[in-house]
Amino acid sequence: MKKDIFTQQTSSTDCRARRGQVTTRHGTFQTPVFMPVGTQASVKAVTPENLVELGAEIILGNTYHLFLRPGHALIETLGGLHSFMHWERPILTDSGGFQIFSLQELATITEEGAAFRSHLDGSRLFLSPESAVAVQEALGADIMMVLDTCIPYPADHEEAARATALTGRWAKRCRQAQQPTGQLLFGIIQGGIYPDLRREAVSELVDIGFDGYAIGGLSVGEPKELMLAMLEETVPHLPADQPVYLMGVGTPEDLVEGVYRGVDMFDCVMPTRNARNGMLFTSQGRIVIKNARYREDQRPLDESCTCYTCRNYSRAYLRHLFQSHEILAYQLNSIHNLHYYCALMAQMRTAIETDRFSQFRKEFYENRLP
Amino acid sequence: MKKDIFTQQTSSTDCRARRGQVTTRHGTFQTPVFMPVGTQASVKAVTPENLVELGAEIILGNTYHLFLRPGHALIETLGGLHSFMHWERPILTDSGGFQIFSLQELATITEEGAAFRSHLDGSRLFLSPESAVAVQEALGADIMMVLDTCIPYPADHEEAARATALTGRWAKRCRQAQQPTGQLLFGIIQGGIYPDLRREAVSELVDIGFDGYAIGGLSVGEPKELMLAMLEETVPHLPADQPVYLMGVGTPEDLVEGVYRGVDMFDCVMPTRNARNGMLFTSQGRIVIKNARYREDQRPLDESCTCYTCRNYSRAYLRHLFQSHEILAYQLNSIHNLHYYCALMAQMRTAIETDRFSQFRKEFYENRLP
Repeated sequence: MKKDIFTQQTSSTDCRARRGQVTTRHGTFQTPVFMPVGTQASVKAVTPENLVELGAEIILGNTYHLFLRPGHALIETLGGLHSFMHWERPILTDSGGFQIFSLQELATITEEGAAFRSHLDGSRLFLSPESAVAVQEALGADIMMVLDTCIPYPADHEEAARATALTGRWAKRCRQAQQPTGQLLFGIIQGGIYPDLRREAVSELVDIGFDGYAIGGLSVGEPKELMLAMLEETVPHLPADQPVYLMGVGTPEDLVEGVYRGVDMFDCVMPTRNARNGMLFTSQGRIVIKNARYREDQRPLDESCTCYTCRNYSRAYLRHLFQSHEILAYQLNSIHNLHYYCALMAQMRTAIETDRFSQFRKEFYENRLP
Repeated sequence: MKKDIFTQQTSSTDCRARRGQVTTRHGTFQTPVFMPVGTQASVKAVTPENLVELGAEIILGNTYHLFLRPGHALIETLGGLHSFMHWERPILTDSGGFQIFSLQELATITEEGAAFRSHLDGSRLFLSPESAVAVQEALGADIMMVLDTCIPYPADHEEAARATALTGRWAKRCRQAQQPTGQLLFGIIQGGIYPDLRREAVSELVDIGFDGYAIGGLSVGEPKELMLAMLEETVPHLPADQPVYLMGVGTPEDLVEGVYRGVDMFDCVMPTRNARNGMLFTSQGRIVIKNARYREDQRPLDESCTCYTCRNYSRAYLRHLFQSHEILAYQLNSIHNLHYYCALMAQMRTAIETDRFSQFRKEFYENRLP
C-alpha cells in the first residue's frame, strides 16, 4: 500500500536538514513545511486567499472538532472539507486522539477505542481506530493520521509502554480499515521520553508500513532539551524516503531545531493564537503589540517582512486596533504571524538547497535582539 | 466659502431621486451613496481592500471614538486618518454630538459646548463647536460635520425648538472656526418631528452656507411614517445644487425611500452589526443564518449576489462558522452585507440614470419573499 509520495531534492552535509516535496490528491507541497491549523474548517481570522498569498501550501483540520460540529457526514454530503471551506490545496487531518485527551477529563480508553463526551453538549461519543479513519475519509483529507493515545508528561516507563503498545495495535487497525481512496495515512510514533519505547514504536509502525511518520507526544510539557533528544533518538531510525512530521510544534526556534534534526512537516496553533493575543513574531524577536512603546511607532512590525500587514500598517495602528478590540486586529496579526512562519520555512528551504542550513541556523539566533 | 462640489447628472421625472457625484480632496464618489461605518478607524471585520472590491467609495469615521482613542493628535502625527487606516478614498467624520448624547447619561450641554465623560475611563472631556471642527481637521476628514445637539423622541415643541436653535448657533461657530484646508463642512438640520422647526433650521443653516446639508435626529425611535414625512418636509427646501445626507439611516427599505425623496448620502452600522449577529440581507429578504433550515443548504446567501462570500461559500458553511463563533463568520457576513448595501445603491444609481427609479422601487418590494 505504500506510495512514493516523497521526493527528496537535497540534503545537508553537516546536519539532517533536507529539502523535498510531498505529493497528494490535491497537489504537491514543498518541505520543510509549516501547516497552519484550521481547527473548525477555518484557519482563524484569515481567508483561504490570505493563506495562499502568505505562502501556505497545506493546512491542518481537526477531526475531533469537525466530528462534533458540523459532523463529517454533513461535510461529506456537501462535497468534502476542501469544497466546504473553499481551500483547494492539500489538507492534513489529525485523528482526534490528542483533542480527546486534552479536552476531556473523563475520556475512557479501552482496547476498542476512546469513549468521551462532547465538550459542546456533553453527549457520549466513541471513536475507534476504524471510525477515526472513516471520519477522515469522509472529510476528504489528503493526509490522515492514525488514532493514537497520548502519553502525559511525566509518565513512568510502564504507563508509557502500555500506551505506546496500544497505539501500535490501533495503528495496525487503522491501516487495515483504510479504503482505497488515494488518501494518505501517516503512523504516529509515541513512546514518551523513553528512547527504547520510541525505537520499538518506530520498528512496529514501519513494519505495518505508512505513507509517512509523525512524532507525537512531544511539546506536552517536557523540557525543550528532552524534546530535541527524543527527536534525535527517533528521526534517524525512520525510513529516509518518507516524510517526517513533528506534531503540534512549535515556536520559531523549535521549527529551526526540528528541521536541523530532519523533520519535514510541522503544525501549531501558536502563530494564530498568539496573533489573537497580540504577540507577534519578527525576525528580531517577539513584539507584544499592546505595549505603550508602540503608541506612536510608524514602523511596520518587521521592516524585513513583505506580508500584507507589514506592507500597509504601522505598529501604532495595530496597537490601536488591538486596544480597541477590533476584529481587524485579529485578521492583520494572524496574517503577519502565519506569514512569518511560512516565510521562515521558505528561508530554511532555500538555505538547504545551497547546503547553508547550519549557517542559516546560526544567523537566525544572531538576528534576535536580546 | 461654498464650493461647487456637487454635480447633478440626472434627475427623475416622477420623484425626487437624483444621480450625482461629490468631489473631495480624496477624489469623487457617485451618489446616491452608502457609507460604511468605520467607528474606530476600522470598518469592523473587513479590510480596505474588501471595501474597494465590494464597491465602497467613501466611509465614515466617528469623531467621538477617535477623539477618545487613540486621540486625534496622535492620528495627525501619524499622517491623518487615511494613512493611519490605509484608506485612500474619501472619509466623512461625524462631529461626535450623536455619540456624546447616546453613550452618555450625564452629558451636560451649555451654550459653550458639551461636557461629558469618556465611556472608556470616565475622564472628564469637553467638546465645543470649535474643537469639534479642530478634531476633524486633525483627523484629515474630507467631509466634516458641525457639532449638533440631539433631540430625543419624543420631545415637546419647546424642547425641540431650544435644541434646534442651539444647533444653529453652534453651526455658525463651526463654520467660523473652520481653517482653509480644503476640507468640506456640512450643516445638520435638526427640528425633531416638527415641520416648522425643520424649515427654520433649513433657513438658518442655508443662510450660514455649508458644502452640504445633513438631516439629523431621525431614526431615533419615531414611527417610520414620521421619518419619511420629515424628509418630505425638509429635502425640498434644501439647495438643489448641494448634497443631502440622511444621518444614521438605515434599512434597505429606508435607503430606497430616502433616495425616492431626494437623499444623496446615507450611513448606518446596520449592515456590519447585523452581519456580526448573523442577520444577512438578500434580494429576497433577510436570512438568519443560525436557523437550522440552512444546515445542509449548499446555495450561496443570495443567488443573484456577486460578492466574495456568495462566490465562494455556501449557507451551510456560513451557518457552521457562525455557530462555531469563528472570526471568519464576521468577516464573510460583513463583506456580504456591505456588498448588498453598496450594490443596492449602484442599482438605484443605474435606475435613476434611465429614469426608471419608481419602477425599480416597485420591483424592489415585489422581490421580497413574504
